[in-house]
Amino acid sequence: MSKVLRKPAEFRQACEDARAAQRHVGLVPTMGALHDGHFSLIDEAKSRADFIALTLFVNPLQFAPGEDLTRYPRTFESDLAGCRERGVDVVFAPEPGAMYSPEFQTGVSVKGISEPLEGGFRPSHFDGVTTVVTKLFNLAGPCIAMFGRKDYQQWKVLSRMALDLDMPIEVVGCPIIREDDGLALSSRNRYLSTSDRTRALGIVAGLRQAFDAWEHGEREPDVLRSLAEEPVRGAFDRLDYVAAVDPETLAAPSPSPRRILIAVAAHLGTTRLIDNVVLGEDARP
Amino acid sequence: MSKVLRKPAEFRQACEDARAAQRHVGLVPTMGALHDGHFSLIDEAKSRADFIALTLFVNPLQFAPGEDLTRYPRTFESDLAGCRERGVDVVFAPEPGAMYSPEFQTGVSVKGISEPLEGGFRPSHFDGVTTVVTKLFNLAGPCIAMFGRKDYQQWKVLSRMALDLDMPIEVVGCPIIREDDGLALSSRNRYLSTSDRTRALGIVAGLRQAFDAWEHGEREPDVLRSLAEEPVRGAFDRLDYVAAVDPETLAAPSPSPRRILIAVAAHLGTTRLIDNVVLGEDARP
Repeated sequence: MSKVLRKPAEFRQACEDARAAQRHVGLVPTMGALHDGHFSLIDEAKSRADFIALTLFVNPLQFAPGEDLTRYPRTFESDLAGCRERGVDVVFAPEPGAMYSPEFQTGVSVKGISEPLEGGFRPSHFDGVTTVVTKLFNLAGPCIAMFGRKDYQQWKVLSRMALDLDMPIEVVGCPIIREDDGLALSSRNRYLSTSDRTRALGIVAGLRQAFDAWEHGEREPDVLRSLAEEPVRGAFDRLDYVAAVDPETLAAPSPSPRRILIAVAAHLGTTRLIDNVVLGEDARP
Repeated sequence: MSKVLRKPAEFRQACEDARAAQRHVGLVPTMGALHDGHFSLIDEAKSRADFIALTLFVNPLQFAPGEDLTRYPRTFESDLAGCRERGVDVVFAPEPGAMYSPEFQTGVSVKGISEPLEGGFRPSHFDGVTTVVTKLFNLAGPCIAMFGRKDYQQWKVLSRMALDLDMPIEVVGCPIIREDDGLALSSRNRYLSTSDRTRALGIVAGLRQAFDAWEHGEREPDVLRSLAEEPVRGAFDRLDYVAAVDPETLAAPSPSPRRILIAVAAHLGTTRLIDNVVLGEDARP
């Protein structure tokens, strides 16, 4: 039976009590609208910790004006049912005002790795992410925290943050969960009309073209990038980026790379989708 | 017998072991060159915690180019003797390279309250302070952390940071310790020649003039500010600021203030001194 807490102080206390009882806190930060991707984070957390804290918070700080903050899907009751089914111990679902007082004026920021890809199109996004995740880390005091690799750059930014700030927390990136046809699960998929849902497969086709070329020995980043881009360009209304970069630095790959991250962000109407694959590491999308 | 640790991981472990033994960690972050002001922080920490961790780290991140990073006084052996005498449990004295890897790219920043006073003259200073203190907090996991109110704005910035980021730590500001003639203790006082040491009392004279006027009923910030400024202007080579502000917001005081912070920063040759008094709260300097 997952306990639902609304106040930061209550959440802190629940996690503190768990730690006092020698339980290891595993944190799963989410914005709600939970799907099997999130549930895989819970399962992974349960295999590595014995008190699971899941947070449901659509963090206003990581949305720019004009982004989809107000229409971001909110499905609290079914989220809660999913958490209960999977044995989450505590669900923290604060109001924005409980997280950000009127006097709030502090930020956590990672340079460098936050600047390419998403950083180029959502300039203040990662500052919002790193700030809220720092708050959640400080409230929960977890040993581990789980993030999905669909938000690959987010995972890398948060890993860098935890390392740089000596946070005593293992930041875990869990594999992307996909539909049978390959589309990466995303809370934003529910924005898609039936026809856009079909067009969205252009991303999968792009990642697969790059993947297959890599498997056949192609190592030239520009070639892999172009192969990934072509089907996306055909299917989507607008591309933000299709990139072939080093999976650790997100900068240009070294010569003869052992791994390459192919990352895509593109728009179908008012819906923005992202996806990625690490060639040389991940399975075929 | 204070244990001296150089590596962040060792420091983390020592504090973790203390917490596991049900001890409350009190943290005293310093840049070394310890004096009775620092020792009063240790004493206060000992009255409120039972495992005292003192850090000695001249943090390069909080010095701008041209400031006194390289000539900042380093007195490790006598610092250590002072810590041992006062029963500090662990002294953490890392090399800069152990705190900041070449890949380091994360910062913690407080807006608003960090911008006036020191913020106007040392623009990146507080970002360096909040970042390193976050790291020390994450390494030590203290219940309380002690700071001197000579660095009044630093104390307020760090209090704001801890609150905003939900750090489970009480940030304590301890009273200024002064010489018999009123000069606030500072590691930088040792830069002063005999004649400059005498001139430095201009700050004390200024604070006392404001204090005495307040005691006689003066409440006009501009009048109090001018009274504080006059002796400083007479004695020092250059003023950065003499301010009369609200002690909580560091902005203009409300009408009929119950308390006013008088804060001063001024130069004697290459030495920069700061001092302050909270009228309506502190004793006469």
